[in-house]
Amino acid sequence: MANDSSPPSRPARRGFLKAGAATVAAGASLGTVGVAQAAAQAALGKTHADDPQLAVEPFFAPHQGGIVTPQQSHTYVVALDLTTEKRDDLIGLLRTWTDAAARMTQGSPAASLQTADDKSAPDSGDVLGLGAAGLTITFGFGPGLFTHEGKDRYGLASRRPAALVDLPRFNGDQLVAEKTGGDLFIQACANDAQVAFHAARQLARQAYGIAQMRWGQAGFLSGPRGQTPRNLMGFKDGTNNPSTQSAPLMNEFVWATSADTPWMQGGTYTVVRRIRITLEHWDQMELGFQEQVFGRHKYSGAPIGQKNEFDAVNLDAQDKDGNNVIPDNSHVRLSNHASNNGAQILRRSYSYNDGTNFYIERWPPWRQETEYDAGLIFIAHQSDPRTGFIPINEKLSKFDLMNQFTTHIGSAVFACPPGARQGSFIGAGLFET
Amino acid sequence: MANDSSPPSRPARRGFLKAGAATVAAGASLGTVGVAQAAAQAALGKTHADDPQLAVEPFFAPHQGGIVTPQQSHTYVVALDLTTEKRDDLIGLLRTWTDAAARMTQGSPAASLQTADDKSAPDSGDVLGLGAAGLTITFGFGPGLFTHEGKDRYGLASRRPAALVDLPRFNGDQLVAEKTGGDLFIQACANDAQVAFHAARQLARQAYGIAQMRWGQAGFLSGPRGQTPRNLMGFKDGTNNPSTQSAPLMNEFVWATSADTPWMQGGTYTVVRRIRITLEHWDQMELGFQEQVFGRHKYSGAPIGQKNEFDAVNLDAQDKDGNNVIPDNSHVRLSNHASNNGAQILRRSYSYNDGTNFYIERWPPWRQETEYDAGLIFIAHQSDPRTGFIPINEKLSKFDLMNQFTTHIGSAVFACPPGARQGSFIGAGLFET
Repeated sequence: MANDSSPPSRPARRGFLKAGAATVAAGASLGTVGVAQAAAQAALGKTHADDPQLAVEPFFAPHQGGIVTPQQSHTYVVALDLTTEKRDDLIGLLRTWTDAAARMTQGSPAASLQTADDKSAPDSGDVLGLGAAGLTITFGFGPGLFTHEGKDRYGLASRRPAALVDLPRFNGDQLVAEKTGGDLFIQACANDAQVAFHAARQLARQAYGIAQMRWGQAGFLSGPRGQTPRNLMGFKDGTNNPSTQSAPLMNEFVWATSADTPWMQGGTYTVVRRIRITLEHWDQMELGFQEQVFGRHKYSGAPIGQKNEFDAVNLDAQDKDGNNVIPDNSHVRLSNHASNNGAQILRRSYSYNDGTNFYIERWPPWRQETEYDAGLIFIAHQSDPRTGFIPINEKLSKFDLMNQFTTHIGSAVFACPPGARQGSFIGAGLFET
Repeated sequence: MANDSSPPSRPARRGFLKAGAATVAAGASLGTVGVAQAAAQAALGKTHADDPQLAVEPFFAPHQGGIVTPQQSHTYVVALDLTTEKRDDLIGLLRTWTDAAARMTQGSPAASLQTADDKSAPDSGDVLGLGAAGLTITFGFGPGLFTHEGKDRYGLASRRPAALVDLPRFNGDQLVAEKTGGDLFIQACANDAQVAFHAARQLARQAYGIAQMRWGQAGFLSGPRGQTPRNLMGFKDGTNNPSTQSAPLMNEFVWATSADTPWMQGGTYTVVRRIRITLEHWDQMELGFQEQVFGRHKYSGAPIGQKNEFDAVNLDAQDKDGNNVIPDNSHVRLSNHASNNGAQILRRSYSYNDGTNFYIERWPPWRQETEYDAGLIFIAHQSDPRTGFIPINEKLSKFDLMNQFTTHIGSAVFACPPGARQGSFIGAGLFET
């Protein structure tokens, strides 16, 4: 072991343990595991229905959590690329993930902490005692799971659902490869930032040697409880969502249709778009112009010309000069189901905030400034992207006034299978013959 | 106005407003402001002491908030560079900031929302109705406020406190210029991510033309309420902090000494370090080795060889072979006040999580992988960095075993003046002659 008189080189870890006080550490650290777990259990025991930190969501259910679950305040989403060539590795990973996700959603570590201290711990330990915080974990399968560079790595190519199409290139897309795509998807949502990240981090680690992280992104959502949250542009976001309380609406627009492949029954298709927003630019806009862009009043959330948030959007209303009250290129008009052959998608987006970037433009006006790296992790669930996100965004990407403030820099699409049955694993139906 | 048959060019905003339905929008949006404010007030009215979203911290006080305030769960920190040459601009900005901070900490918008809709709104509106969420706003002055490239821009060079030294270059520093330094500092802490960011964003915007953002960073903290929070390495962080309940300790170690310049009486010096942590590497380490690095047991937080978190750190304890029980190069030993001539600093750090970066190393083992861009926004308050952070970090940067997992990539130091008196403004004493 290095001493204080010179900077230590990196000690060989085993050598360090042998030379150091490892024998003292061993017993003590093992002895305290039970205590920490007991404390966590005790905290969970006194569950207050209104304490978001102590909320617990079921894991084994007909549908996966995190789709129609009332939205938690934080998320961490991850996409991974499969590196294994073996079908059994993939199945093994899904089994491990199912077990870990079931544990973590109930407030336990990803795996038992009872481990010798000369092993790496199976859980990073950073949320011990925090409570489940309403954690849900949602898994999805990207196109690359079925075919990768023309190769059918896992004998699954023929089982790719028709609805899992590759997204087209949309007008204005500025996609960054390392924020786009992915063979596997994990969405961890919780009422605590650390609980959400912790879950995704343990699962990503369990994939070592089988899949590697392609991108990860933290997100947050704030809103008066029970009301529609506002995004970073200051407008309410999600007012016109189909109600998750309505089974007929969910069956029509969110869950895979009965015509879909059997292993997707009870599942959904999820589109993720990383949308950067130039907040500095937006903040300088006149209030009236902001409202024209959205087609809604900012403070009330009401459609322009109406009083209340949930007043019906009347796209036919005209002012005395015969102009549309809700502008032709407003976001609300273009995305409304009446403008899209009745199509609806279930948006469940989060804001993101990755600090700042420094930009230099080497042309007039030679802008050099620090800007927010912030915006929206747009997440939308639907029964079929071909009748959901794709046609709606084809229109928005061309005509939406909002486009001058937003840039799509990441994109992905996943088939999220139904929930797992106890004793089985996520996506099991995909592997049944 | 563009129609649906062709992609719209960016409309001139005024032209658009004239051609569109602006007249309809005007009355309605103004009419709803009062409603939104009333709703927010009503929500604030039923303050539950145990609802972190409804907590309200005082703004006008002998000390600024966010220093000894019990730590909120989120922060957004910003450093700005002054671009004006005028002393009056600087004073005007501090007055504006004081007014806005006083309003926002009490749950109000940064400025009255009563504005015509052909003006940009004075507040982005994204936290309407959310409650104050325990918001505190802390302002600080960097070295560049006093002298910038050898120039005394505001006649303040002679008033620079001796304790506001430029930080030395520490061993291993990998500082990124655009994450380092700054003439002005804003720390917004709240129990809600959006409330914290909102506050910093309004203040940064109010500085347009006088100061521009140099860097901004979101952070979060999770921990069972009333217990020491764990950082992303899974260890409790802050156990050995001097107690903020002890006025003598705060006077000795946190607040500027009586020998300091009069305008800093009641203030403190704040060091900010952005410390990236290689979580993937850390997670692979044996539990016992992690504990050797920290000098504490992971789950209990007890010093190695002890049972409970708050058991005294006994640096003299030896095992039967005569080795120190708390390793020579452990973080706890090197940072302990007994190893630093009694020096103590008040750490009030947050974790950060900016998603992922993709790395390529063009040398063996030719690593190509996505890694977390996550770690610690280390924030420490002290009466004098020359006896606080600097000597402690001189030692840590050379000898701490933790250095193989951590890289300091951002750094800044600020003089945070005392709290403002009602009717006055933050830092007023600096300008009094």
